[in-house]
Amino acid sequence: MIEIIQKKKNGLELTKEELEFVVEKYVSGEIPDYQMSALLMAIVLNGMTDEETINLTKIMKNSGDILELNEIDGIKVDKHSTGGVGDKTTLVLAPLLATVGLKVVKMSGRGLGHTGGTIDKLESIKGFNTSLSIDEVIKQVNEIGVAVVGQTGNLVPADKKIYALRDVTATVDSIPLIASSIMSKKLAVSSDVILLDIKVGNGALMQTIDDARKLANLMIKIGKSENRKTVCVLSNMDEPLGEMIGNATEVIESIDTLKGNGPKDLNELVLTLGGLIVSLAKNISVEDAKKDLENNLKNGQAYLKFKEMVDAQGGDIDNINSSKKSISIKSKEEGFIKSIGTLSLGEILKEMGAGRIKKEDKINHKIGMKIHKKVGDYIKKDEELVTLYTEDNNYNIDKILKCFNISKQKCDKEPLIYEIIV
Amino acid sequence: MIEIIQKKKNGLELTKEELEFVVEKYVSGEIPDYQMSALLMAIVLNGMTDEETINLTKIMKNSGDILELNEIDGIKVDKHSTGGVGDKTTLVLAPLLATVGLKVVKMSGRGLGHTGGTIDKLESIKGFNTSLSIDEVIKQVNEIGVAVVGQTGNLVPADKKIYALRDVTATVDSIPLIASSIMSKKLAVSSDVILLDIKVGNGALMQTIDDARKLANLMIKIGKSENRKTVCVLSNMDEPLGEMIGNATEVIESIDTLKGNGPKDLNELVLTLGGLIVSLAKNISVEDAKKDLENNLKNGQAYLKFKEMVDAQGGDIDNINSSKKSISIKSKEEGFIKSIGTLSLGEILKEMGAGRIKKEDKINHKIGMKIHKKVGDYIKKDEELVTLYTEDNNYNIDKILKCFNISKQKCDKEPLIYEIIV
Repeated sequence: MIEIIQKKKNGLELTKEELEFVVEKYVSGEIPDYQMSALLMAIVLNGMTDEETINLTKIMKNSGDILELNEIDGIKVDKHSTGGVGDKTTLVLAPLLATVGLKVVKMSGRGLGHTGGTIDKLESIKGFNTSLSIDEVIKQVNEIGVAVVGQTGNLVPADKKIYALRDVTATVDSIPLIASSIMSKKLAVSSDVILLDIKVGNGALMQTIDDARKLANLMIKIGKSENRKTVCVLSNMDEPLGEMIGNATEVIESIDTLKGNGPKDLNELVLTLGGLIVSLAKNISVEDAKKDLENNLKNGQAYLKFKEMVDAQGGDIDNINSSKKSISIKSKEEGFIKSIGTLSLGEILKEMGAGRIKKEDKINHKIGMKIHKKVGDYIKKDEELVTLYTEDNNYNIDKILKCFNISKQKCDKEPLIYEIIV
Repeated sequence: MIEIIQKKKNGLELTKEELEFVVEKYVSGEIPDYQMSALLMAIVLNGMTDEETINLTKIMKNSGDILELNEIDGIKVDKHSTGGVGDKTTLVLAPLLATVGLKVVKMSGRGLGHTGGTIDKLESIKGFNTSLSIDEVIKQVNEIGVAVVGQTGNLVPADKKIYALRDVTATVDSIPLIASSIMSKKLAVSSDVILLDIKVGNGALMQTIDDARKLANLMIKIGKSENRKTVCVLSNMDEPLGEMIGNATEVIESIDTLKGNGPKDLNELVLTLGGLIVSLAKNISVEDAKKDLENNLKNGQAYLKFKEMVDAQGGDIDNINSSKKSISIKSKEEGFIKSIGTLSLGEILKEMGAGRIKKEDKINHKIGMKIHKKVGDYIKKDEELVTLYTEDNNYNIDKILKCFNISKQKCDKEPLIYEIIV
């Protein structure tokens, strides 16, 4: 191991055998954390070649169970977001894709840092069970076309252990390490189409389009190396997606969107991502794919599919654990919203209890916010800017208001979709 | 700690307070090894400014006891070598400096990797006690002017813990980390003059004169920051120093040198280093200083002082634990010695038992070698190249012969002393 660290420290390429040794012995506990963290830091600073990253991804993928989906008929599709604030896309997109006949086995995570997690959000619905066995998942997807669950089986234990170490050693922000972490999990589930939504902006891991593009190209290369149709979308995370942030609040906004009444940006993102997935899966044009999806949002099919999924997973859609109280927060200034401190908003909600500070913390599904004005919008003095949903008193209105930068000048708004990379 | 790692990862300068936090909390066990090793790798790859290194050195120095030498009358001098093969300079130089009235409190180490350690070598002398208390050291140095002992007291615990981690995480080869490790220990003993012998070559930590020069300038800066007279010598380690390698063998060669019959290179190095130390300590010319020292090698004073020290520390100079058997290894080729694999020779002896593979290994003082031909020398076929001293059978003659690169062409020899930096 010392020689391998030395090699990477000197900027050299590690062989497949060396990476196998590292992953295998680290997972088995023979390589101690302190050697692994030294190697990870050397990787962060000296990088990895595409070949090293592809090898590392495959080795990590093979560190645990592989979820073969042969028993599911039809075209299996998967999507992944690198994480943002208010990103409830999966809640809408997963059932929507099932309405056009695709099979959606979606394994989601819990909230991490300032970003929420799909599994936490779904658990706002009373009774909703996110811990299905592999057999239950396969059965449900064969029956209704969609299941959204937490990680099941012993998938990619190497990533679990390495990620936990990266989190406490400041070795998260490395494009090869991010790519191998995401793609090892995607490849461990044998979907035919993988869509990766890479968030860019002040509420995301990737701060620049340039970095996001590098990550996209690398993940596409990894996906293609295992013959998966892989597409990346670079989307804006300089403001929350949609109007709602929190757990129950995001479920409510997702239901509105599934009924065709979603906020403009969320609706646009769902149709863009969905259009690409359907187009790749069915070999039809993106435009046609989008139209089909849009119809199913408007005609009630999408919401019905979501309800079917909630029913199948034991949830009661009429019983969402939302807050009975709300606080109306009004702007103290007049002007255009120039920017929104998206990371800060996520942190504020997390600290109020909507997310976890320590891994073992319980979250409060009720806590959330509605953002009434987005970047570029005009707000008057004393007009409502944020509705805060909470039954507790641990909020700080000034801290929330400080997340909004208001300017006298009219502000340009960045596009929602920066790039699509195939 | 995560923020501090992040900062260094991004190439920023750490403040004194941040370095204090790191050293204090790491020594106390609050910062785990895996975070420290990530930080160390970031330091190796992104470097430290001189100010950071000076701060780190002082913080490390202050992590344990400080050995004030006020109770010793006279000028206290110290020397340190960065480690080489056959480097027995301290055994000769320490008593020699005492013969001209200087006070030498020399704390030495044990063998490390392929390089021997002064303490191990002295323990070849039956009864020699290297574990003196601080009071015993002070008493002995006041009486006879010299003591060579292992580390006493709780000096620089931060270095002990950090060094052990660097050793197993491939984070040894960083000039700021090497400088702070060496200088924290030198500054923890309040000598007036510090001479640093930086070895350069294939048997040394520093492979290039350029790196050695950087290390020298940094250590001088650190020494001067605490008002110590500090001088560095860059000396050749592309071949063993002297003819003998091993423990007992090196004591025997040191005694020869103390009696004025040393090999040319060892003699020259002792006089160069000694001349500089005496010149700085007494404000006389290096030439005059060297002459005084040379006289004391020739007139028997140096050997008498060594014997006095051995007696004072309980050793029996007539009872050196040397091998009763030897093997004569003859050259299979004729030609000039072009180069010597110095590191390899050190490793071979270590593996035979003259050094330690694991920290807790016992060493065999008897094992050693005499190198009959050095770089530039001519050797005939079947002429003796190496005498191997061992009573065991675990030697491999071909492996030893392979350390000598013999050429038909006459070879240039690098100088013994590359540079003196004050």
